[in-house]
Amino acid sequence: MDERSMPRVAFQGAPGAYSEEAVHRVYGTDTPTIPLRENRDVTRAVADGRADLGLLPIENTLAGAVLASYDAMLAEPDIHAIDEVVLPIHHFVLGVLGASIASLRTIESHPIALAQCETFFRAHPAIEPHAVYDTGGAADAIARAGELTRGAIASRAAASRYGLSVLAENVEDRSDNQTRFLVLSRTPAQPRDGERVRTLVALTVDNKPGGLLRVLAPLAQRNLNLVRLESRPTREPWTYWFMVEFEHQSGDTAAHDALEEIGRVSHELRAIGTYPAAAETFGQ
Amino acid sequence: MDERSMPRVAFQGAPGAYSEEAVHRVYGTDTPTIPLRENRDVTRAVADGRADLGLLPIENTLAGAVLASYDAMLAEPDIHAIDEVVLPIHHFVLGVLGASIASLRTIESHPIALAQCETFFRAHPAIEPHAVYDTGGAADAIARAGELTRGAIASRAAASRYGLSVLAENVEDRSDNQTRFLVLSRTPAQPRDGERVRTLVALTVDNKPGGLLRVLAPLAQRNLNLVRLESRPTREPWTYWFMVEFEHQSGDTAAHDALEEIGRVSHELRAIGTYPAAAETFGQ
Repeated sequence: MDERSMPRVAFQGAPGAYSEEAVHRVYGTDTPTIPLRENRDVTRAVADGRADLGLLPIENTLAGAVLASYDAMLAEPDIHAIDEVVLPIHHFVLGVLGASIASLRTIESHPIALAQCETFFRAHPAIEPHAVYDTGGAADAIARAGELTRGAIASRAAASRYGLSVLAENVEDRSDNQTRFLVLSRTPAQPRDGERVRTLVALTVDNKPGGLLRVLAPLAQRNLNLVRLESRPTREPWTYWFMVEFEHQSGDTAAHDALEEIGRVSHELRAIGTYPAAAETFGQ
Repeated sequence: MDERSMPRVAFQGAPGAYSEEAVHRVYGTDTPTIPLRENRDVTRAVADGRADLGLLPIENTLAGAVLASYDAMLAEPDIHAIDEVVLPIHHFVLGVLGASIASLRTIESHPIALAQCETFFRAHPAIEPHAVYDTGGAADAIARAGELTRGAIASRAAASRYGLSVLAENVEDRSDNQTRFLVLSRTPAQPRDGERVRTLVALTVDNKPGGLLRVLAPLAQRNLNLVRLESRPTREPWTYWFMVEFEHQSGDTAAHDALEEIGRVSHELRAIGTYPAAAETFGQ
């Protein structure tokens, strides 16, 4: 990418999605974005150069891990996580002009957004949640259809983009709802020495008792903070990719030694990235 | 439940769902089943006595963990996992009489079933996957609609139940695709001493570095086999329920001592159940 030009950033969803909001938050609202259908498309676009950067949600404080993002990263071994972004998420029920909560029969949104608004749906049993690919796309679809019975859950930005009315504000179950994103690039980050960073690695272990605990021990012995551990299926039944994320200081010996030791007890070990830790989160 | 009568078993999905197939496999095809809409409804039905037992998928060899089932178990602290069932999963593309793969524009199914048939969808880009609540319900819906453009991915049993044609067989990405289910009850299981069992516990730890590793150490020190570790969000941002499943022999001291030690270093510890390990699976 030309240093003087702005990066083109790929995200999953339609224009107006929360991921686009996260891109604008970090890189400015003028940043050119590339909306893509699937999380997997985002890592592919970064790998093949159609995008300079990609942004994927990996965890939400209400819904938990975004497994499709882990799978998308595993599918492209040559890209790197270079930054972490935490975005507060507020959900709005949107409808066409003239619609009201009482006129709605369905509300369309991304499954994770729907899962974050359980209280709203419990209070409105006449409205059926309907899972679609993304929040921005849901807003687009109901705006095109123009029916009083169809609502969408999306961001406030999506309301103005698609000319929709806000029928209910902040319908998320918790007002401190947040999503953590990773920024992906073909080039690894170069954190300053001593900076508080996180390292994400993916590894497989031999199928014998204690395999997983053996790769975690090098972190425990050095008092390194395990932030997250996710397991994703490999192609072989009952065998896993473990995604291990831990926190440390950039350039410290403990993290270096731990990784070397983990490499020795792993079957396969892939570094996904080392990136500055967002201030909002803290470790397990 | 009356010992002489058959248990009524709740499952998530419509009649013809894979979960119903799993119920019939374990308890016989005459077993009365209770189809429910959400995983959460299954644990609620067991807790309040509308069902004698519940059956929930917790892991698939292609799609990974079924997070909604973990959440459903966490939401009902008084029910117990009493058995583990592993079912081979084969997917069929179903359509109404006269439909063919070429006439389809959408295929409806449970999101996890759709995720297991990526190769099929990549080979048929004109067909759009459409996520709905369950495989049996998808088959029911397309049978009622009677349109040549709408297909469903479901079991062979769903084809005969809803009078649909099988348009393509075994469209899952891997023929060794399997789903692991847990059986839930108000009464804990009583495994024989020495039997190979698994124990699932849910726990929270204090938010300080190394908390998670500290609760895993008691298993590692005794060479107990950690089968799975899942983290699910609590109501507090960036804090987690850890679901720890490990394998041991029923009644052995090592497991007893490890649990006691885990209890001391956990903030909260809940036993979800101890149940015979299915022969098909093995630990991490």
